[in-house]
Amino acid sequence: MSQAEPLRVGVVGLGAMGAEHVLALSEHVPGAQVVAVHDVDAHRAGEVAASVGARVAGSAEGLVADADVDAVVVASPDRTHAPLTLACLATGKPVLCEKPLGVSVAETAQVVAAEEAAGRRLVTVGFMRRFDPGYLELREAVLGGRVGEPVLVHCVHRNASPHPDATTEGVVGNSMVHELDILPWLTGLPVTGIEVRSPRSEGLREPQLAVVELGRVLATVEVSLSVRYGYDVRCEVVGTEGAVSLRPPARLDVARDGRAGVVVAADFRERFAEAYRAELAAWVAAAGRGGATGASAEDGHRATVVAAAGIESLSSGRRVAVPPG
Amino acid sequence: MSQAEPLRVGVVGLGAMGAEHVLALSEHVPGAQVVAVHDVDAHRAGEVAASVGARVAGSAEGLVADADVDAVVVASPDRTHAPLTLACLATGKPVLCEKPLGVSVAETAQVVAAEEAAGRRLVTVGFMRRFDPGYLELREAVLGGRVGEPVLVHCVHRNASPHPDATTEGVVGNSMVHELDILPWLTGLPVTGIEVRSPRSEGLREPQLAVVELGRVLATVEVSLSVRYGYDVRCEVVGTEGAVSLRPPARLDVARDGRAGVVVAADFRERFAEAYRAELAAWVAAAGRGGATGASAEDGHRATVVAAAGIESLSSGRRVAVPPG
Amino acid sequence: MSQAEPLRVGVVGLGAMGAEHVLALSEHVPGAQVVAVHDVDAHRAGEVAASVGARVAGSAEGLVADADVDAVVVASPDRTHAPLTLACLATGKPVLCEKPLGVSVAETAQVVAAEEAAGRRLVTVGFMRRFDPGYLELREAVLGGRVGEPVLVHCVHRNASPHPDATTEGVVGNSMVHELDILPWLTGLPVTGIEVRSPRSEGLREPQLAVVELGRVLATVEVSLSVRYGYDVRCEVVGTEGAVSLRPPARLDVARDGRAGVVVAADFRERFAEAYRAELAAWVAAAGRGGATGASAEDGHRATVVAAAGIESLSSGRRVAVPPG
Amino acid sequence: MSQAEPLRVGVVGLGAMGAEHVLALSEHVPGAQVVAVHDVDAHRAGEVAASVGARVAGSAEGLVADADVDAVVVASPDRTHAPLTLACLATGKPVLCEKPLGVSVAETAQVVAAEEAAGRRLVTVGFMRRFDPGYLELREAVLGGRVGEPVLVHCVHRNASPHPDATTEGVVGNSMVHELDILPWLTGLPVTGIEVRSPRSEGLREPQLAVVELGRVLATVEVSLSVRYGYDVRCEVVGTEGAVSLRPPARLDVARDGRAGVVVAADFRERFAEAYRAELAAWVAAAGRGGATGASAEDGHRATVVAAAGIESLSSGRRVAVPPG
Repeated sequence: MSQAEPLRVGVVGLGAMGAEHVLALSEHVPGAQVVAVHDVDAHRAGEVAASVGARVAGSAEGLVADADVDAVVVASPDRTHAPLTLACLATGKPVLCEKPLGVSVAETAQVVAAEEAAGRRLVTVGFMRRFDPGYLELREAVLGGRVGEPVLVHCVHRNASPHPDATTEGVVGNSMVHELDILPWLTGLPVTGIEVRSPRSEGLREPQLAVVELGRVLATVEVSLSVRYGYDVRCEVVGTEGAVSLRPPARLDVARDGRAGVVVAADFRERFAEAYRAELAAWVAAAGRGGATGASAEDGHRATVVAAAGIESLSSGRRVAVPPG
Repeated sequence: MSQAEPLRVGVVGLGAMGAEHVLALSEHVPGAQVVAVHDVDAHRAGEVAASVGARVAGSAEGLVADADVDAVVVASPDRTHAPLTLACLATGKPVLCEKPLGVSVAETAQVVAAEEAAGRRLVTVGFMRRFDPGYLELREAVLGGRVGEPVLVHCVHRNASPHPDATTEGVVGNSMVHELDILPWLTGLPVTGIEVRSPRSEGLREPQLAVVELGRVLATVEVSLSVRYGYDVRCEVVGTEGAVSLRPPARLDVARDGRAGVVVAADFRERFAEAYRAELAAWVAAAGRGGATGASAEDGHRATVVAAAGIESLSSGRRVAVPPG
Repeated sequence: MSQAEPLRVGVVGLGAMGAEHVLALSEHVPGAQVVAVHDVDAHRAGEVAASVGARVAGSAEGLVADADVDAVVVASPDRTHAPLTLACLATGKPVLCEKPLGVSVAETAQVVAAEEAAGRRLVTVGFMRRFDPGYLELREAVLGGRVGEPVLVHCVHRNASPHPDATTEGVVGNSMVHELDILPWLTGLPVTGIEVRSPRSEGLREPQLAVVELGRVLATVEVSLSVRYGYDVRCEVVGTEGAVSLRPPARLDVARDGRAGVVVAADFRERFAEAYRAELAAWVAAAGRGGATGASAEDGHRATVVAAAGIESLSSGRRVAVPPG
Repeated sequence: MSQAEPLRVGVVGLGAMGAEHVLALSEHVPGAQVVAVHDVDAHRAGEVAASVGARVAGSAEGLVADADVDAVVVASPDRTHAPLTLACLATGKPVLCEKPLGVSVAETAQVVAAEEAAGRRLVTVGFMRRFDPGYLELREAVLGGRVGEPVLVHCVHRNASPHPDATTEGVVGNSMVHELDILPWLTGLPVTGIEVRSPRSEGLREPQLAVVELGRVLATVEVSLSVRYGYDVRCEVVGTEGAVSLRPPARLDVARDGRAGVVVAADFRERFAEAYRAELAAWVAAAGRGGATGASAEDGHRATVVAAAGIESLSSGRRVAVPPG
């Protein structure tokens, strides 16, 4: 596989996620070069820039406008996602925007409209699970009819401990949103209704349990923030001919100290390291051709619509219908 | 373990379940002797009786009244459960009644009242899972705090194919009722609310998906009647310190024909063979002392109350509150 | 299952194994009554006797001769096994002798000859694995042709830490002897050769690794005494059509503290609790009819013959042929 | 990760393995371009060349000598491995030679000497398992002391059915050779002795069972060619503090047709697809810098020395000592 000129990438937001992306682009993804970075913390920006030989952009907007930046990764705080994605669209640059695509349905609708106006796909939303080898095999099995017609899906999404800034709405909008994106992708069916509840009625309301309707398919989604034992994501699809599920992704069995089994991933970065790299590689390849890959602006918008319905349900205690796209 | 005089048992109802009980009592359970059997099919009754040296009773009521019968197993059709159990109570005989204890809340309430009037426990309801070695270990782990305080429970209950007489209500009252009994037993908490739905809105409405509330604990229950691949019962409890679940009960791993793994049980009799035997053994021991074991009339009544709420929910499409006890 | 008069059992040797047998006979095995016990430690004998309402016999020989003892369990030190078994044969009493049947080939040959002279089977050797539900299923699968003709067997037999009295020869004669009994039982083929080695050339030579020949089948056996993590016994049979193996016998999966999997059994008593009970129950039933069950004197002799060949191999560093029976 | 000029690769031998390499280099490996191919079957060479835009070289020697070829992959029959590797060394070109490095100890010693004379590492031997993510994690665990000091290793290497050209010697030299390379790599210890046997004494002698000594560590190796159910490679390392093993690499659990578990890989190409790509990627990167990676000529020679000892053992029926390097 020979390469043409590398794609010159700018990265906005250098928190854990953004820094990881810079590292992955520099060390593991062919055909890319991180040429500019930005973060509100200028010191941090300087450090990261130095580590990969990039320059520090004075502002996010400046980075997007920079003529020497071919494509942009947006990993800054959620409220900046839609505005920066819109800025990229305005300059005609491919953008990989971390999920969620925006903090409101209005915002994400605006991104969809702007991309439509641009006349071609430029937006990729960072739903990295679509690039996880396990999820890809699962989808291939389901859509290939390996278990007949899908009837039920069970999703589990557990974190060891909550982020200090975690909010009840964020459990839906930042965590469950992964499942809200994956469910239609796995089944080929749009979400038509959602009901979310929690055993806790005050404070940080987690765990949350959702029942999601996708036409003739029903799904359960557990999102837990504080299971202590690690980061654990599971998915099973039950069909008319059988059932298929993700296996725990560990490569080793360890017997020690009276126990035998696997070591659980500590967090999402460890669990989805391969997915993030594959996502970046696919995005770099697509952006190099001026396009996009993975989850589209429409997919990102759709996930936000469903998440908003979920938040409404959690608050009202009732099922909320979701008009299909 | 030395034995006194064997308990003389009468068995009413010789369908698959009843015949299995007769066999187990004769071959695997110490201290019991099947002395009388009854079935509406007299020919079948004669065959079963002959196989174990019992006599055929002319009627269920006659069997219950027979002075040479110390204790009774009721395995006849559901609508006969409560009447026969009441008959046993009237004669002061220990009775093991297959679940459900009755076909209506009124019936099961009547049994509870009659036993209370009798002044001592005589009724055991056949929720055999309480005697399954796996469920027993799971309960011990949960109540012993192995995973902290329980927060969520996930139950799966799958059958290969529906019984020809299966009904939508029966999915709740005959199948899910096992989980409705096991959930409080596992957590020590009463059910306080239930919501049941199905992706199918007509015909035999299955699979069914329930969200069950037990105070601060939320549970999901999937009951499927037609997964084709076998009979599969699962249970996971998630707590504040970790999670614990039943492992598939197979004893062998088989690698053949391009696949490696376990053979799935064909049906509930195979899956719970050990539980049924342990249940009968415990019941014979308890009945020999004039008492009862396992699920009580109150437990059986409670499961019926929750099942009725579940059926109402399935029909109304809304959560139904269940007054605690 | 009704019972006749209980079998009056005497137990010689009240170490961990013997005390466990007394307990199991008293609490879990139908049709038996422990009426007499003996141990060189009279105080211990008194305690155990009191706990089950048995009397203390003044000597092992006295217990065997006692007219009120119908059958005998021999769980005293290895060097007493053959002499006490011979004493039982002399009085015509069924005897369950813990493995090994004797400490030399000469001894075990003498037992075989004595039983032959007695004209009927009275001896059962305590190879409890033959009653383990997993091994029974494995054997049924193998002999039933589930994986075609057997070609290879892999056995693993690990202990957490060595007994203080463990010896290099004892690793073969006391531990590996279980596999030396099970291999012919599983395959239906006699051992024809053995080679044993250890990575340690001095001190307590363990782990040991044996290659065992059973005609056209080859087997590997690992016996380790100090793996720290627990007691772990495995067995896989590879045949011309596939492979079948024992699954770890745990009933629960536990996720805690960054790990997910099973709790490993602490020792053989925990791992084979069910096997010991089933063995005792089968023995009581057989002894009640004046006979024996499980591994015969011939089986016990045969295992000793092969173990002796293994010890010779370990010492000489060469394969040792074993004349088939 | 930006790229310089792509490495121009020539591939000799376009059988299953070579064709796979051409495909992987063209589609999955960054920084490489297949510019020339050769096969004794000119028609096949033409097809493969056309599919990736390469030219067909008239002879293997011509391809090696071609000034427009920077580096060479040797995937032609075993007897050509050493001669072509020597040719590459003579021209100073990096070469990835499929295992085995040669068909005799004399040949592989010659390659080692030639590389030594060249003054720098140019040879990479295609022991792809060293690039398998599972084996890499296993090695890291073992060398990192996760299970204490290694004491035993158990390897299993099963094929569904033998290649039509399979020979008894080839079972050692072509199949078991993978384990003979991996064992020292995993433990950091050289092989010091080997004993190989088979339950079959004539015809194609397989399965084969080896006991391999690596100083204080003992290893068992099963190589089977005809297990029918699929391609299955396992490895467990037992240490002084516990045990660690490869998990089956499947990503999905499938429940269908009465069975639940994983789909077994069909062959080595499927099982080690990721390893082959990682190997090629690492080799292209190293060759681009004029060097080598993975298993060295010395490693390849060493594996051949041990395999020769194994073949001798199989024939003589005795353990064969291997002088450490």
